[in-house]
Amino acid sequence: MRISELSRRSRVPVPSIKYYVREGLLPAGTALGPTSSEYGEQHVKRLHLIRALIDIGGLSIATAKDVLGAVDSPDLSLAHVFERAQLAVSRTAVYSAEGSDESRRRLDELVEAQGWHVGPGNPGRVAASNILDAFDALGLDGLRSLLTPYAQAAAAIAEVDLRAVAAQPDIEAMTETVVAGTVLGDALLAALRRMAQEHMTSVLFPSPTSSPPAA
Amino acid sequence: MRISELSRRSRVPVPSIKYYVREGLLPAGTALGPTSSEYGEQHVKRLHLIRALIDIGGLSIATAKDVLGAVDSPDLSLAHVFERAQLAVSRTAVYSAEGSDESRRRLDELVEAQGWHVGPGNPGRVAASNILDAFDALGLDGLRSLLTPYAQAAAAIAEVDLRAVAAQPDIEAMTETVVAGTVLGDALLAALRRMAQEHMTSVLFPSPTSSPPAA
Repeated sequence: MRISELSRRSRVPVPSIKYYVREGLLPAGTALGPTSSEYGEQHVKRLHLIRALIDIGGLSIATAKDVLGAVDSPDLSLAHVFERAQLAVSRTAVYSAEGSDESRRRLDELVEAQGWHVGPGNPGRVAASNILDAFDALGLDGLRSLLTPYAQAAAAIAEVDLRAVAAQPDIEAMTETVVAGTVLGDALLAALRRMAQEHMTSVLFPSPTSSPPAA
Repeated sequence: MRISELSRRSRVPVPSIKYYVREGLLPAGTALGPTSSEYGEQHVKRLHLIRALIDIGGLSIATAKDVLGAVDSPDLSLAHVFERAQLAVSRTAVYSAEGSDESRRRLDELVEAQGWHVGPGNPGRVAASNILDAFDALGLDGLRSLLTPYAQAAAAIAEVDLRAVAAQPDIEAMTETVVAGTVLGDALLAALRRMAQEHMTSVLFPSPTSSPPAA
């Protein structure tokens, strides 16, 4: 198909398609002449993935490019694709430095209690140690009690995540599922948590004003 | 205490403290004279909350101010504090428009199957409909199957969240817990998911390179 048809199919404007090609997020089409190229179904799919990473995952162009580079490296192990995708969605300062010894020790205990195999450099482990420190600094006692039930929920989610990856027919679909699942999965989980919180608020704190107004 | 002591206690530089006061995130201290003010423990606590929202939650100054305004409105119902906090961490385009009829219908079915009481304007519901559309566009079949197990995990998490709120001694601690729990809870859950994913990768895809190198 020509670029106009690719634009119609993907709902991405032609200038944006050209931009993604220039920036290396989208492979160039097959040149048909000096001003026209032929694009295929892979381009439609890739554009959907690019838009999902940027619009839903909130990734920058540069970060999306890095993650897509992982998708395009068939020699990369799934663990490393996960790592690249995880680092990409780990944008805040919380991932840049280790937390306190006390919080790291608590996470060591958690990992052992859950029977997890998790290396010390896992980005989530670094982030969690900082978040526990923040909980302590806030002096809100209830927050630390969230750790174990959250970990149990995370374990259930990760199992579903990895089974969705394992069910894919080929390595390409597997890596795409890792990337989309990591980036969109955080967003979906946060969205469902907001829905469930509204429900639980109405259960635990019933009041005439407990239901937020429709937007 | 004076501002220098407040800075030492909170580990926030004096110019940042002054900036937060000017921007309305931190109440001014009690004036002792034209150039000095007295600050209390509430200021230390508030600075920790401000830094957690900005450094861990990734909120902008303006958004943090809006969320803190909800904390400072004792007449606001908990449901509305939740709503303000949820909207604050709902930064991406995914929250701005409804998804397709098909995705909204699937969420209606999910809400009914889970027995949830969730209004149509819930920001998570709007986001989830867009994420389901993105899953469809990507053409990766496994992703849609995540919805129900994710919702079950979200329900378990929301129950823990709300019980942590209910366990607080007063309405002030409750609203702080709602805000911190909403913003930091997303981050904690994402962090633990990354840890659990590394574990599940090593279980389901064992390989010599399945353990990412320590950072």
